[in-house]
Amino acid sequence: MVEEKTIGYKAYIAENEKMFLDELFALLRIPSISADTNFSESVFAAADFVAEKLKVAGADKVEICQTDGYPIVYGEKMVSPELPTVLVYGHYDVQPVDPLELWHSPPFEPVLKDGKIYARGASDDKGQMYMHVKAFEMMMRTNSLACNVKFMIEGEEEVGSRNLEIFVRNNKERLKADVILISDTTMLANDVPSISVGLRGLSYVEVEVTGPNRDLHSGMYGGAVANPINILCEMIAKMKDANNHITIPHFYDDVIELSTEERGQMAKAPFSLADYKAALDLSDIHGEAGYSTMERTSIRPTLDVNGIWGGYTGEGAKTVIASKAYAKISMRLVPNQDPDKTVELFSNYFQSVAPKSVKVKVTPHHGGHPVVTPSDSVAYRAASKAFEQTFGKTPIPTRSGGSIPIVAMFKSVLGLDSVMMGFGLDSDAIHSPNEKYGVFNYLIGIETLGLFYQNYAKAF
Amino acid sequence: MVEEKTIGYKAYIAENEKMFLDELFALLRIPSISADTNFSESVFAAADFVAEKLKVAGADKVEICQTDGYPIVYGEKMVSPELPTVLVYGHYDVQPVDPLELWHSPPFEPVLKDGKIYARGASDDKGQMYMHVKAFEMMMRTNSLACNVKFMIEGEEEVGSRNLEIFVRNNKERLKADVILISDTTMLANDVPSISVGLRGLSYVEVEVTGPNRDLHSGMYGGAVANPINILCEMIAKMKDANNHITIPHFYDDVIELSTEERGQMAKAPFSLADYKAALDLSDIHGEAGYSTMERTSIRPTLDVNGIWGGYTGEGAKTVIASKAYAKISMRLVPNQDPDKTVELFSNYFQSVAPKSVKVKVTPHHGGHPVVTPSDSVAYRAASKAFEQTFGKTPIPTRSGGSIPIVAMFKSVLGLDSVMMGFGLDSDAIHSPNEKYGVFNYLIGIETLGLFYQNYAKAF
Repeated sequence: MVEEKTIGYKAYIAENEKMFLDELFALLRIPSISADTNFSESVFAAADFVAEKLKVAGADKVEICQTDGYPIVYGEKMVSPELPTVLVYGHYDVQPVDPLELWHSPPFEPVLKDGKIYARGASDDKGQMYMHVKAFEMMMRTNSLACNVKFMIEGEEEVGSRNLEIFVRNNKERLKADVILISDTTMLANDVPSISVGLRGLSYVEVEVTGPNRDLHSGMYGGAVANPINILCEMIAKMKDANNHITIPHFYDDVIELSTEERGQMAKAPFSLADYKAALDLSDIHGEAGYSTMERTSIRPTLDVNGIWGGYTGEGAKTVIASKAYAKISMRLVPNQDPDKTVELFSNYFQSVAPKSVKVKVTPHHGGHPVVTPSDSVAYRAASKAFEQTFGKTPIPTRSGGSIPIVAMFKSVLGLDSVMMGFGLDSDAIHSPNEKYGVFNYLIGIETLGLFYQNYAKAF
Repeated sequence: MVEEKTIGYKAYIAENEKMFLDELFALLRIPSISADTNFSESVFAAADFVAEKLKVAGADKVEICQTDGYPIVYGEKMVSPELPTVLVYGHYDVQPVDPLELWHSPPFEPVLKDGKIYARGASDDKGQMYMHVKAFEMMMRTNSLACNVKFMIEGEEEVGSRNLEIFVRNNKERLKADVILISDTTMLANDVPSISVGLRGLSYVEVEVTGPNRDLHSGMYGGAVANPINILCEMIAKMKDANNHITIPHFYDDVIELSTEERGQMAKAPFSLADYKAALDLSDIHGEAGYSTMERTSIRPTLDVNGIWGGYTGEGAKTVIASKAYAKISMRLVPNQDPDKTVELFSNYFQSVAPKSVKVKVTPHHGGHPVVTPSDSVAYRAASKAFEQTFGKTPIPTRSGGSIPIVAMFKSVLGLDSVMMGFGLDSDAIHSPNEKYGVFNYLIGIETLGLFYQNYAKAF
């Protein structure tokens, strides 16, 4: 039966490949950047697109649920109350595109090159989210939908899912399910399938350092007044010691350290440091002393400046002392760190290292809790088996460096675990210029998701 | 005779005040930003304006001398070979205007408010330069021009006077004079006249720090690769120690330290730290330990970041690790520091503090030598006397923090000392939003300059 379905799905996918790609391209053409209000109309348009395609695929009760921000697209297909229910989560919004000049082709004019789809959102998350819509359609058309399914596709993931929790809290009954299924993570490689079982959390702040009340001539005032840019740099430098250990007091207090055994297990995952450095053109890696690269990106918290600006940044030279300097700073968190507590620890320490000669403001952006999902559940095993069927290999459970803050929220509000069947690759350049997604990954993702439903229904 | 002239000039100025202001306003309306090629046409237009006004005032041989960049406006009036010759230097280009949103009125739409002219260039240097054109016209119209006069007004001062030295070297004969007269500095206060006798030099560099070869997702890569913004901040922090002493090896080697007596003399100049802090809304001053505010801005070198940028600086949050981070860094120099040598010292040290995980590029912009001009020359005494006549007080010789790199060049190429009769105030906000220049300063400047010629001719 399973073999049959595999073959059936393979044939269906082969027949519909062009339509699958055409529709994804149409979705990728919508510049649904949620972080920039200039693109507001397009974000709404992307929601309409998803709703329409869910209807066409056969979903019932499709609704564009308005929120205080961008809407959540809901749809469902209830086959039978006897069957388990899968709640699919994904997002139709995308990251900003700057620096635009580094894109080889316009971010919202998708192109197919060497088997890859290049566009903003190709992997994160339009490509991965749309696999679910097409897998659902495939199951409907082939009369093989073995579970009930509900869709909850949001448009604010890239800005912190501001309104999702409210929606979830207000729709607990409608969202009743047995498991949540998400494709918004990566695999180790196309020949090394893996399933994410852990995600880092996030604290994100914006800081503003004010020196004099106006921009000053650096000749007349230089040396005698606090230069907010120099000071900001010094304050940022004080956030880490020479071992790249974060110096914020109590920052590591709640971190769950892995056992030597667990770290040994992690170290078995295939990883080439030489390839890693070559791919990023790095002479040397850089991180917390005492931890491997894999550990630094998964089980250790971080502090990164994501943006900095101040003073004259135009052509040529301007001898100015700026009044203000700014930075956006994020911290990736690991279990059991709390994002709000971390913001508070950061804020207190950041203020404490400021000299009296400047004023400091710390504004928190959205954050998210770190999460670890079970790797021994029925759903995990169904997912694992689906990967085996399509890739011919048992997927490795991994912990990812990125954050999907809503996974922790789903657990706490709905009491549901998530299974993260991601088909992206680290090289997809999500959040970067020239984001891409493999056609291979897109199609095998649709197939693997279809098989998950079969396996899950059978094992439930 | 002198008294007579003073009265004569006062009357002339009172009669022509409206015309003086109207013409300056017209000049201020030309957005001659030399640092930004988008304003190129306007920079040329400002040169035309100055040339035309010199002609109208009565100058001979007026010429817009083309260079590889912006032209130098030349004009002269040779009264007699027996008389001393004054070479007037000034500039018609201005600084960029950003941050534009902090201006209370558009920078190129001058407004008169509370006796101040608000506009980019009002003080630096259109307002101060144009005093010379009008003082010359006044002397011509009142038949009192007591010296020969030559004008050399350039359009690249704000970008390092790139082509001026070539022009000066190629025009030594034409520029033959006895003294150079410049108004591009400040006085201590409207009731505390002063004359600049020292100016700091300048080294200016742009630095680029490259981490990974592309922007990365901070969740997937954060903690394991060099973040160029964090690294740049750490490198900048390493440029100064806890006493705000610059840590670049050999940086202070050539600095001429002032004697206790000289420092005691400086300390006598009127200065209120409370007023200084209040004017800039500073809770505390900030600078090199062991030196006063006046000393920090005049006899001590500095290192200031004038601009910094990298990563995501738009609305909201983006979890990116930038590929590159940039800063513009300038150092003010004091006698006997050399700008080229200083750039080299900086560059070596900056490279040396970079971790192996990043690539660093240092690009020098223009620099300038520090300078000290004599305060016992005939010309200085003539200037001092002119201030006495108009302000009723002997001006204090001061050393300014800013740089006019060409003063050192004039000395080395033409063998001429400069007299810096500046009428601006530190509060003019030059290089900042809401630059202004007092109508009082503009008019008394014209009068004082006229008297300088009388005094100089008499004493020569």
